[in-house]
Amino acid sequence: MKINENFLKIQNNYLFSDIAKRVAAYAAANPGADLIRLGIGDVTRPLTPSVIDAMRSAVDDMSDIERFKGYPPEWGYDFLRSAINENDFKARGVNLKDSEIYVSDGAKSDCGNIGDIFDVCNIVALCDPVYPVYVDTNVMGGRAGEFIGERWSDIYYMPCVKENHFLPELPNKKVDLVYLCFPNNPTGMAISAAELKKWVDYANENGSVILYDAAYEAFISDGSPHSIFEIEGAKTCAIEFRSFSKTAGFTGVRCSYTIIPGELERGGVNLGALWARRQATKLNGVSYITQKGAEATFSVDGKRQGREIIEYYLNNAKIIYKGLKALGYEVYGGVNAPYIWLRTPDKLTSWEFFDLLLNKVQVVGTPGAGFGPSGEGYFRLTAFNTLENTEEAVKRIAEI
Amino acid sequence: MKINENFLKIQNNYLFSDIAKRVAAYAAANPGADLIRLGIGDVTRPLTPSVIDAMRSAVDDMSDIERFKGYPPEWGYDFLRSAINENDFKARGVNLKDSEIYVSDGAKSDCGNIGDIFDVCNIVALCDPVYPVYVDTNVMGGRAGEFIGERWSDIYYMPCVKENHFLPELPNKKVDLVYLCFPNNPTGMAISAAELKKWVDYANENGSVILYDAAYEAFISDGSPHSIFEIEGAKTCAIEFRSFSKTAGFTGVRCSYTIIPGELERGGVNLGALWARRQATKLNGVSYITQKGAEATFSVDGKRQGREIIEYYLNNAKIIYKGLKALGYEVYGGVNAPYIWLRTPDKLTSWEFFDLLLNKVQVVGTPGAGFGPSGEGYFRLTAFNTLENTEEAVKRIAEI
Repeated sequence: MKINENFLKIQNNYLFSDIAKRVAAYAAANPGADLIRLGIGDVTRPLTPSVIDAMRSAVDDMSDIERFKGYPPEWGYDFLRSAINENDFKARGVNLKDSEIYVSDGAKSDCGNIGDIFDVCNIVALCDPVYPVYVDTNVMGGRAGEFIGERWSDIYYMPCVKENHFLPELPNKKVDLVYLCFPNNPTGMAISAAELKKWVDYANENGSVILYDAAYEAFISDGSPHSIFEIEGAKTCAIEFRSFSKTAGFTGVRCSYTIIPGELERGGVNLGALWARRQATKLNGVSYITQKGAEATFSVDGKRQGREIIEYYLNNAKIIYKGLKALGYEVYGGVNAPYIWLRTPDKLTSWEFFDLLLNKVQVVGTPGAGFGPSGEGYFRLTAFNTLENTEEAVKRIAEI
Repeated sequence: MKINENFLKIQNNYLFSDIAKRVAAYAAANPGADLIRLGIGDVTRPLTPSVIDAMRSAVDDMSDIERFKGYPPEWGYDFLRSAINENDFKARGVNLKDSEIYVSDGAKSDCGNIGDIFDVCNIVALCDPVYPVYVDTNVMGGRAGEFIGERWSDIYYMPCVKENHFLPELPNKKVDLVYLCFPNNPTGMAISAAELKKWVDYANENGSVILYDAAYEAFISDGSPHSIFEIEGAKTCAIEFRSFSKTAGFTGVRCSYTIIPGELERGGVNLGALWARRQATKLNGVSYITQKGAEATFSVDGKRQGREIIEYYLNNAKIIYKGLKALGYEVYGGVNAPYIWLRTPDKLTSWEFFDLLLNKVQVVGTPGAGFGPSGEGYFRLTAFNTLENTEEAVKRIAEI
């Protein structure tokens, strides 16, 4: 019996566990310390009344023999797939079939599990800094090679730094799988249609597949594309991941969806058919109650109430962005995303700045180095705390 | 860009889709036909009042800023892991740590995803007939070899037929991963502690790992073990999958758990640590509302109400079992499981008998051959319909 030895390669210092440990140690040494957490990207506002009403009613359905629902459809209820299509795509001029939308329990699951349908030998390109799940799932899947110094030997890194406006540059060689996330976690930067078109063209020319994570699209405030399928040619080269987690506060409810257009084929094989098979075999659908809640985010009231929450977080982002800028920090992101990405002051490393914020003013953020070597010298703050705490955090940072 | 070519090997005739197609064709040709479905193993009784109350209250929590829950803990809320341990294990004399219990969204997900932590080269042993998910996920994972005739070249098949009382025999060679499911789907047979001990000994002697699917344990009516961990030595060789789907009618709610004891190591590596890492990286936990519902199945009322539903289904099973026996059929299962497994009469193939039942008396069952070559000549009926329909189905079968 042999284990999958790729698992042993994963670096044990998982970013958020490390942070949690340092914070716990500080809290233990300083009982009563009033910490403000602007670290992990979890939402804090309650679900909207529309969602709550829909879920209550769905729970009631499950109590009644006539309305009770057993196994959900493998790729999502028609009512949800159709509402997603109507509101998130048709309304933006993107023409999809409901059957190209696969509902699941989370974008993290889908981003991680999508690797199942691809061969181990594919070359993976990742932004640096990056959401750690893309890295770790490819390590587990055997596509990363060895960890040498700060990088995986078989992964193609695309640094996203101040000098290139935090936008990855087209690879100078052929890569097979390109993970892109816009608006970006951790940098908070959006991508323009013109920039994204370059990637679509690259992928179509090279037979690559773009794995496009649009989990933060609801935060877009300028004209940046919400979906890669707004770009001509994307249907033959892209898979898109969407989530209700950040758009509707569903981190504790678990609902997402993945788009694989019927036109997306490689080696004569439809990738949607492979994913459909993967999901039908290794998943038994998503809770009916959850899907009814997700559907309610698209009602007139649901949309308005959801929008208010996004605006609340965006206002927090603005407070951090403006506040830090006024203090002389170099600040990025925060306009199209709930993330503010800043240069650490005085050439501090990102962990040194983490310790400074924690120890001096009890504010918890995320060190940029945790997202990849090019994140060194940067730091992430999130807009998901309350308005009051966000304002207080900026005030405290001013006192450093 | 290469796809995972193992996906192309999967046999396209997925059992339940085939059945659905034949039934749809019959229904189209015979509008108004009064079909009774004793095919797919989905529950039909509504959730119990205890579960409904708990889920209502959990939905309310999500509407309140103080009680709102974001990302769930990666391996389940402590309240649920502790309730599972107390009720499903400690109460049966099995001593586990809460941390050895990993909550997830379904036993199908866990049975499928567990392959991630094992090397591709391991030899897999499967019962025949068998739940198709074990086969298909190993095909996807590259462990099945080629499909030749009726079997996969690299899988070790263990026929479970009348002649061996539907119990697999110990392999005559070393195998690495052994899938066992008791009470069994599709045969409905339970396994005694003495028989199960043979497997635990075999696995410990050979360094194999038993993947034990106990999704139907709530239906056990005799003294058969509910958990493999009731058997001495199992903690060093077994992983167990449990589900709320059949025990609490959660097929549409999605909640399950997997047990990996701390003692289970291979090559000096703790398998629980690998699974913990897999789940933390590729899953973001299970809905808070779902987990509160699952917890409520363990309250005093919850247990009593849940038991009533199990008894309802077991009564249906008894009606089918006794009814068919009285008609001269050779019948198995149905005592410790919601499944009745019968020999087809007059040497009909299992698909011929399927067509006969569908066309003559509009009863839908599942052809045994769909579960593997040794299922030929057998047929599965399930106890999940209403009492009235179950009685009517037996009456109709008597008219053949």
